[in-house]
Amino acid sequence: MSVNLDHALAYAQNNRQRFLAELIDFVSIPSVSTDPAAKPDIQRAAEWVAGQLLSMGFEKVQILPTAGHPVVYGEMLTAGPDKPTVLIYGHYDVQPAEPFDLWKSPPFEPVVRGENLYGRGASDMKGQVLTSLKSAEAWIRNGGLPINVKYLIEGEEEIGSPNLGKFIGAHKDLLACNIAINPDTEMVGADDPTITYGLRGLAYFEIRLQGPEHDLHSGMYGGVVHNPAQVLCELVAGMHDAQGRVTLPGYYDRVRPLETEERAEMARLPMDEDFYLQQTGAPALRGEAGYTPAECVEGRPTLEVNGLLSGFTGEGQKTVLPAKAMAKISMRLVPDQDPDEVYGQLRQYLQEKAPNTVRWELIQMASGPASITDRHLPAVTALADALQATWGKRPIFKREGGSVPVVAQMQTELGVESVLTGFGLPDDNLHAPNEKIHLPTFYRGIEAFIRFYDNLSR
Amino acid sequence: MSVNLDHALAYAQNNRQRFLAELIDFVSIPSVSTDPAAKPDIQRAAEWVAGQLLSMGFEKVQILPTAGHPVVYGEMLTAGPDKPTVLIYGHYDVQPAEPFDLWKSPPFEPVVRGENLYGRGASDMKGQVLTSLKSAEAWIRNGGLPINVKYLIEGEEEIGSPNLGKFIGAHKDLLACNIAINPDTEMVGADDPTITYGLRGLAYFEIRLQGPEHDLHSGMYGGVVHNPAQVLCELVAGMHDAQGRVTLPGYYDRVRPLETEERAEMARLPMDEDFYLQQTGAPALRGEAGYTPAECVEGRPTLEVNGLLSGFTGEGQKTVLPAKAMAKISMRLVPDQDPDEVYGQLRQYLQEKAPNTVRWELIQMASGPASITDRHLPAVTALADALQATWGKRPIFKREGGSVPVVAQMQTELGVESVLTGFGLPDDNLHAPNEKIHLPTFYRGIEAFIRFYDNLSR
Repeated sequence: MSVNLDHALAYAQNNRQRFLAELIDFVSIPSVSTDPAAKPDIQRAAEWVAGQLLSMGFEKVQILPTAGHPVVYGEMLTAGPDKPTVLIYGHYDVQPAEPFDLWKSPPFEPVVRGENLYGRGASDMKGQVLTSLKSAEAWIRNGGLPINVKYLIEGEEEIGSPNLGKFIGAHKDLLACNIAINPDTEMVGADDPTITYGLRGLAYFEIRLQGPEHDLHSGMYGGVVHNPAQVLCELVAGMHDAQGRVTLPGYYDRVRPLETEERAEMARLPMDEDFYLQQTGAPALRGEAGYTPAECVEGRPTLEVNGLLSGFTGEGQKTVLPAKAMAKISMRLVPDQDPDEVYGQLRQYLQEKAPNTVRWELIQMASGPASITDRHLPAVTALADALQATWGKRPIFKREGGSVPVVAQMQTELGVESVLTGFGLPDDNLHAPNEKIHLPTFYRGIEAFIRFYDNLSR
Repeated sequence: MSVNLDHALAYAQNNRQRFLAELIDFVSIPSVSTDPAAKPDIQRAAEWVAGQLLSMGFEKVQILPTAGHPVVYGEMLTAGPDKPTVLIYGHYDVQPAEPFDLWKSPPFEPVVRGENLYGRGASDMKGQVLTSLKSAEAWIRNGGLPINVKYLIEGEEEIGSPNLGKFIGAHKDLLACNIAINPDTEMVGADDPTITYGLRGLAYFEIRLQGPEHDLHSGMYGGVVHNPAQVLCELVAGMHDAQGRVTLPGYYDRVRPLETEERAEMARLPMDEDFYLQQTGAPALRGEAGYTPAECVEGRPTLEVNGLLSGFTGEGQKTVLPAKAMAKISMRLVPDQDPDEVYGQLRQYLQEKAPNTVRWELIQMASGPASITDRHLPAVTALADALQATWGKRPIFKREGGSVPVVAQMQTELGVESVLTGFGLPDDNLHAPNEKIHLPTFYRGIEAFIRFYDNLSR
């Protein structure tokens, strides 16, 4: 087996230029899942992934429909029933690229500058999907995969995977496996391979207020009609207290406290105040009182305003008293918060606080609970050893502030744990202009995956 | 003279269909002064007005440049030096028509439905400009104008007349007059001719916050970076107290209290709580504690949010922690508040309240002080008599919540008082979708102006 491992690693080394060309090809597809107009590009991205699987000789390669965007599936079970079966998760959809004018190069015309490839989805997560595909290819072209592999590559991750739970539930036999691999998280730094054992959940809402029936002249009605934009500001302002805590009734009741050991581990992460100041360029930080920055992001729940819109927002001025005001509000949840429960808490808050001068509507969008994975699973050890062999140091174990709904869905529907890793870096500008992937780390990721399959087969 | 008056009134009666056709033509021009792309339409509207003056035989008809949109001027001094010279003010620009989808018919394709003509600018104030032009025409075609008339029709009223003060100051000789007439206010109701003796001023601002340097992933940074949209909401929410009073430091220091006589007069206006509920469709009202709705609108200062924008506001969801947040904020001022002083108060508020987690910028846009006119001027009496002769009842004297910067500018630059009237109605949807003008009132307005010129000449 070690001869094949050497050949597979050499193959990956020798094919870097082609792998990069394929990544550029993949990132060029503007598969923005939240944009209804991008449906043809979504289909094109799904076909691109299916084409990769077919060219490697995978079987049962299908583009399977859901109520939303389709799922790409393919399997190669040639390692035989004695070897473990791994389900590799990924997504081919990307975040919207707006605001376009802040990109130094067009988001869907990826270009290499220095050691990085710039483009929307380069890191989140088309590059990560390719590390797993190219590592599989390296084995297939050099003696065959040492384990059985199934791919599930979805197209709705960036809109909260609204149809994936149902899809997984409807395809339990097809997706049956021993362990799931999810490379959609990131590293602490280019020299710090990382395994993520916890993720925050997500609950996303839109609040819509309406005061008067239509926009009014602020001179003729200002002073007597309660301005819904002002009401919205008051409601949103009231959702946090002076300690940075969320004020929704009962919000912290089910929050699992951080263990002493976890807090000690988080204290060793290089993610201190300076790190966050440098990463974000914010003039100062503001977290929940009593917690370090790393604890706030990895282990504490939040409530964020993702969008605000009311009245006239164009160039110049308009003396309008707006009829409507809208806020997009989302919460990052920790174990053991329940997305439906926080929906009820937000509804109760609005019932208690919204004045009778406005009508309000609360729209529940995608949601998913937080998750925590057992750090002592054999697959976690196999991954940790592969990362150590590639980087020459033990990986960091951490929780992450982001959300990967599929992890909870696989736990619920397939009874299967997920091993989380990934080769994105903190400065990759995920969900922001000038997203990029660090190419040396991308190539190392392929090598780490090659070793991981080998370790898993033992 | 009374024979000519009868002829002029009959002329107006007989030419209503043509006057309506001309109004439709005028309203069809999308002369939106806040939109840089509408420059050619602004020019077209100015030329349309100049064409009207030329066709009536006015002299010195000119489209005079300013630093912004041009001013149309024309004069007819045929009544001779023994008769008063009246400067008639108007504006040919209109508010933006957004949101277009709420219009029942296109805003710049005016149509008659029932007794109303619908279109952007029909009431504010192209219809009002036409009442003065057509009443002059009625005199000119029937013996000549009984007074000397000068027209000043500007193109920047809806953006706060930023260049008009300077223009008036630079053309003091050209604009010299005994009294200014400004028909840009409205009636209390279709059966209640109205003279407005007070106007609120305006101070318009844009507040821009920036937290992080670029948009961030709300999962990776939420909890440690202070969200500028949340900060904006907190700052805006804090600008009012629970009594509906503005909290800016010193905001009420110079506010002139309402006189007992004024409050008694305001109590007789049909603008009670039911009126405002019906006009606006708001589920409930909210004014400053201790004041009636009419007092709040006519005699008390306000602070309104005219626009809010931050983060992702499109369809669907984006888990972004926005880098920026913007609010358009304007204040309606009463005598003796000073626009530059409230700018300083807002700046002080932000200096005291904005946290160090954001950078902020305060942009001062157009502004003008409030104004009050002497109710015992002879020209006011001439107007009151003309309105009484046309409607058969004494006009209502009131103050208005809106702002007409030119009134203060004429006071300052020309030393001339303005008489304020107008034939718009409270349900004309000014600055809102489905703006309209009530045609029977439009025709009455022409007749009232014909009589007003006659009264002034005595």
